[in-house]
Amino acid sequence: MSSTIVLTGIKPTGKVHVGNYLAAIKPALRMAAEPGRTSLFFIADYHGLTFIQNNEEFRELTYGIAATWLALGLDPEHTVFYRQSDVPEIFELSWILSCLAPKGLMNRAHAYKAIVDRNGMLGADADNGVNMGLFTYPVLMAADILLFQSDLVPVGKDQIQHVEIARDIAELFNRVFGETFKLPQYAVDEETAVIPGLDGRKMSKSYNNTIPLFEPAGTLHKLINKIKTDSTPPGEPKNPEDPPLFALYKPFASEAQIEVMRASYANGISWSAAKQELFQAMDAFLEEPRRKYEDLMADPAQIDAILKQGAAKARALAAPQMDKVRRAIGR
Amino acid sequence: MSSTIVLTGIKPTGKVHVGNYLAAIKPALRMAAEPGRTSLFFIADYHGLTFIQNNEEFRELTYGIAATWLALGLDPEHTVFYRQSDVPEIFELSWILSCLAPKGLMNRAHAYKAIVDRNGMLGADADNGVNMGLFTYPVLMAADILLFQSDLVPVGKDQIQHVEIARDIAELFNRVFGETFKLPQYAVDEETAVIPGLDGRKMSKSYNNTIPLFEPAGTLHKLINKIKTDSTPPGEPKNPEDPPLFALYKPFASEAQIEVMRASYANGISWSAAKQELFQAMDAFLEEPRRKYEDLMADPAQIDAILKQGAAKARALAAPQMDKVRRAIGR
Repeated sequence: MSSTIVLTGIKPTGKVHVGNYLAAIKPALRMAAEPGRTSLFFIADYHGLTFIQNNEEFRELTYGIAATWLALGLDPEHTVFYRQSDVPEIFELSWILSCLAPKGLMNRAHAYKAIVDRNGMLGADADNGVNMGLFTYPVLMAADILLFQSDLVPVGKDQIQHVEIARDIAELFNRVFGETFKLPQYAVDEETAVIPGLDGRKMSKSYNNTIPLFEPAGTLHKLINKIKTDSTPPGEPKNPEDPPLFALYKPFASEAQIEVMRASYANGISWSAAKQELFQAMDAFLEEPRRKYEDLMADPAQIDAILKQGAAKARALAAPQMDKVRRAIGR
Repeated sequence: MSSTIVLTGIKPTGKVHVGNYLAAIKPALRMAAEPGRTSLFFIADYHGLTFIQNNEEFRELTYGIAATWLALGLDPEHTVFYRQSDVPEIFELSWILSCLAPKGLMNRAHAYKAIVDRNGMLGADADNGVNMGLFTYPVLMAADILLFQSDLVPVGKDQIQHVEIARDIAELFNRVFGETFKLPQYAVDEETAVIPGLDGRKMSKSYNNTIPLFEPAGTLHKLINKIKTDSTPPGEPKNPEDPPLFALYKPFASEAQIEVMRASYANGISWSAAKQELFQAMDAFLEEPRRKYEDLMADPAQIDAILKQGAAKARALAAPQMDKVRRAIGR
């Protein structure tokens, strides 16, 4: 039986935090480990070029995000882990698909429309600040997806439309040139837990309340000590359901530890002791990934080697499909 | 001293006629033979995909145009003759450049604007019938040009804007990422002779007055007999400057033959004898190219081999520039 092909795109973004790990990276890695799946993970570095136009930052972000996923358990032996820019077929296919994609499809893309609306409000030209990469991006994403005959594309809600556009383009291609592409499905993780940040609101860079994943233990400790608590004094029972302390503890603790902690809350553990327990659980979990991350970042050649190997696997997977596409168009 | 790099793009179009040969192909081949030049010729097959969406037609046109240029004297040993789709770096670079190219540049492209205007007149949606390949094409053409550090791009008047867009994108890239691209110049052949067709008007497919290049001798003879002449009877002097008979004869005759013919006109050569002379001169010239063309078309593998060899040369020329671009963006 053929396996289900799951494709996950990873944007090169800045420092990853505990919220990113728990809500996105961990479920993706768990999904990849399920039986009957071929899991492809790629770093969408050339997508990043639409907004990162500084070579040091570009390099830093690409290596950083690769090291993050590897440190957190992405297994490059049992998955296909590659950098988009190492697979030239993606860009060739992107051009081919662009000849099938009506421009109207791009005009209606949410991300583009949001910029046009904002420009309208500011009284600026509709396309002010829009580069062609940004405008064309849904076609590149269609190529990312369709080149590998992906069955399933896990996405955030804001990316659903991109998978729909990929389906539309695949259908247009199939209609014009004959059955060539499988139509991909998207998967939105509906249960995604909202991870609270230092102040109890959703952990998010825009709230400046994040716990970065790979800070030294001392910095982690200081951050955890900043977590907002109420003024219930030591000795008085506390409600573990009040965010964020217990909610942050649970994902890093065993079932047994969680039960012990729940009892401690009822027994009036002090906030500072609870914070100490959280720090210890988180630090115990992060110690190894942090070391792995630092090792990788100190040796980018190692990351390159892993990604190159992944690209070779990806290109081998893509080759028959690319041949099929070329034959279909008469190349 | 480094040589001037001249890049000529060849669109895969249908049957080439005498007018195409004399006004475009012949001057391009002569230019390529000038000393101090590195001449690149490429078949813009993936450009053709914006309008040719039928695989048999696509294949036929690509081989046909390659065979035409080779039959007419394009020397693949002393030029770089390749098929665009054999050089994946072009599509990678096209994506990179798209991240630098403001969408406004494409909005202002003549070819796109002409379609928008037509749609407007028809009361249709502005982007009706516009695919993304058509809209993005100037970026692909910038990649075609800039990948090879081209100095000079011979173009028709309608293509000047595309070279200007390539310059604009190159300048934007250089400003953001540091000096990376040479700014190309266009060359418009101002003296391009207008070649008359069978009815005396400019030879053009839209006038249905062309003489296709590689028809069998019998068909060529019949076509030439159809050439419009006036009713001056045999024995009366005729003006060789009246189009189109003498104008078609000259390019295929030697200086001596031309003088003889001029005298014959003055001495009242009959139109049918003049047509016979034209047929003989044209057929003598076309005999070998016609055979070469037919041989190549009967053996597409031979064309493939030539184009593949050209692509290897093109990719070797492109490699250092592509490395430079990747370093510049931080890849």
